[in-house]
Amino acid sequence: MRLCKVNVAIILLVLGVPSVGAQIKTVAERLGYPPDAKLLIVHADDLAVAHSVNAASFDALDKGAVTSASIMVPCPWLTEVAAYAENHPDADLGLHLTLTSEWKIYRWGPVESKDKVSSLLDPAGYLWSEMAPAARNIKPEEAQREIRAQVEHAVAAGIHPTHLDTHMGTLIATPELFAVFVKIAHEYNLPFLAPRQLAERGPLHSALSEKDILLDSVVMANPSVHADAWKDFYTEAIKSLKPGLTEMIVHLGHDDAELQAVMVDHPDYGSAWRQRDYEFVTSTEFKKVLQENNVILVRWKDLQKLLK
Amino acid sequence: MRLCKVNVAIILLVLGVPSVGAQIKTVAERLGYPPDAKLLIVHADDLAVAHSVNAASFDALDKGAVTSASIMVPCPWLTEVAAYAENHPDADLGLHLTLTSEWKIYRWGPVESKDKVSSLLDPAGYLWSEMAPAARNIKPEEAQREIRAQVEHAVAAGIHPTHLDTHMGTLIATPELFAVFVKIAHEYNLPFLAPRQLAERGPLHSALSEKDILLDSVVMANPSVHADAWKDFYTEAIKSLKPGLTEMIVHLGHDDAELQAVMVDHPDYGSAWRQRDYEFVTSTEFKKVLQENNVILVRWKDLQKLLK
Repeated sequence: MRLCKVNVAIILLVLGVPSVGAQIKTVAERLGYPPDAKLLIVHADDLAVAHSVNAASFDALDKGAVTSASIMVPCPWLTEVAAYAENHPDADLGLHLTLTSEWKIYRWGPVESKDKVSSLLDPAGYLWSEMAPAARNIKPEEAQREIRAQVEHAVAAGIHPTHLDTHMGTLIATPELFAVFVKIAHEYNLPFLAPRQLAERGPLHSALSEKDILLDSVVMANPSVHADAWKDFYTEAIKSLKPGLTEMIVHLGHDDAELQAVMVDHPDYGSAWRQRDYEFVTSTEFKKVLQENNVILVRWKDLQKLLK
Repeated sequence: MRLCKVNVAIILLVLGVPSVGAQIKTVAERLGYPPDAKLLIVHADDLAVAHSVNAASFDALDKGAVTSASIMVPCPWLTEVAAYAENHPDADLGLHLTLTSEWKIYRWGPVESKDKVSSLLDPAGYLWSEMAPAARNIKPEEAQREIRAQVEHAVAAGIHPTHLDTHMGTLIATPELFAVFVKIAHEYNLPFLAPRQLAERGPLHSALSEKDILLDSVVMANPSVHADAWKDFYTEAIKSLKPGLTEMIVHLGHDDAELQAVMVDHPDYGSAWRQRDYEFVTSTEFKKVLQENNVILVRWKDLQKLLK
């Protein structure tokens, strides 16, 4: 029964295999791999949110346990990430554009002047806690102002972002916010998180250009995965990978006093969750299953080069 | 030799004993104690700066190891303090008005919209790291706007401040900033940190009113105190207390991964320092020396009542 549950939860966004007979080259081909290669970005989200998350993520990056990570620019620990970036110029670090501040007793505001982005603020003066009120209340022009400020602030801090993605998916929540996300990504000539299934059809599509690189699939643990099935979930996900470009999103951290307090009363994506993710990506089992399944690890940096 | 050093460092601001024959009652008398009573506020600074500081300070407050504490409103962990305040309505919590952000890899900005307080920001867009450039650059009207925003934000978060003081002494660094500090304290009818020696004479004096309560002395550990003389320093300070109103300022925290990272490369007022302060104030030796020296513990709340 448990395995059945795991299987249901494996692929968050169903694979959209590149269409057979397409005239354009696949991303794999463009990167010099066979057209049917299984490319995987192993991506740590939420850098800068807490020291514990930084420490676990830096360790995983250093070990090559994750290929890439992205940074929450408005968060208190940004300067620690900037120092890491300076000392690790080859690290594949993007920006996890942030329009929400979701934890109970630990909050942050925008990078931009508050009065220029007032629709981004909840009644307490921080970024919205949840995606739904954020998507409902945020004016797209203020979202644009804020995410441009986040990019500029990161660059000023010495970070050279390789890609953009979106914290809690807020910037893919509505066509208007997605349009802003894509506009800023185009402006800075950066690849960005756009899952094919969401982006290729439907209301988000019109924001995209032909040059944009879509993710064929995204794998991410979700609350239906039991703690004791963690390894099985990821292992099955790797075994089930199809040809194309997949991102596996993980949330790393140490289950310590700081992170337990940040994430108090929130087991989903919480402190113990992040410890489990950290333990899995740094395990020998993970390396082994990647090798056994001929998975080719790639980075956003590789995709960034295709845009040049 | 070491004891000699300790003695030199004991009293940060030399006692100014209330003048003999003054017609007005001493604070001790006004609070119902003998005129020559030794009143002591044991005060934890820097609440909200980090979870580790909050955890240690809440524990010390709960144990009665400190009488009072003050909160850094722009800092990430304010909401944790607000939750504590809600659950401990009797706790003596003031605001540690904050115009600086001094740690290396963990920074914060103002509460007010950045464009309204641009003189408060360093080139990286955070509050100034050090007191000197802060005092030199900050426009008093912008300091006033920011500290009013800090008071209002704390009140909106459910905190009922009992007093005001100033992080790193920035608001007593110049007569202009001190005038702003006193103006806001008067406006909210709150007692505030004003050491007699600094405030009674000289350029700061003109901001004060006759009603203002001055601290006769302030005791605080400083970098000349050796780690292994910590207990001796405080013990000697208590034994040397003179009649009047003294505040002993301590900086509490647990020497853990979070605080070590916040305070990296900064042993002064750093993580191990805060652990030592925490251990001293919660020790039985501290209780004993207070009793043996007939020290009467008071709170800012008591002083606040005198203003009504």
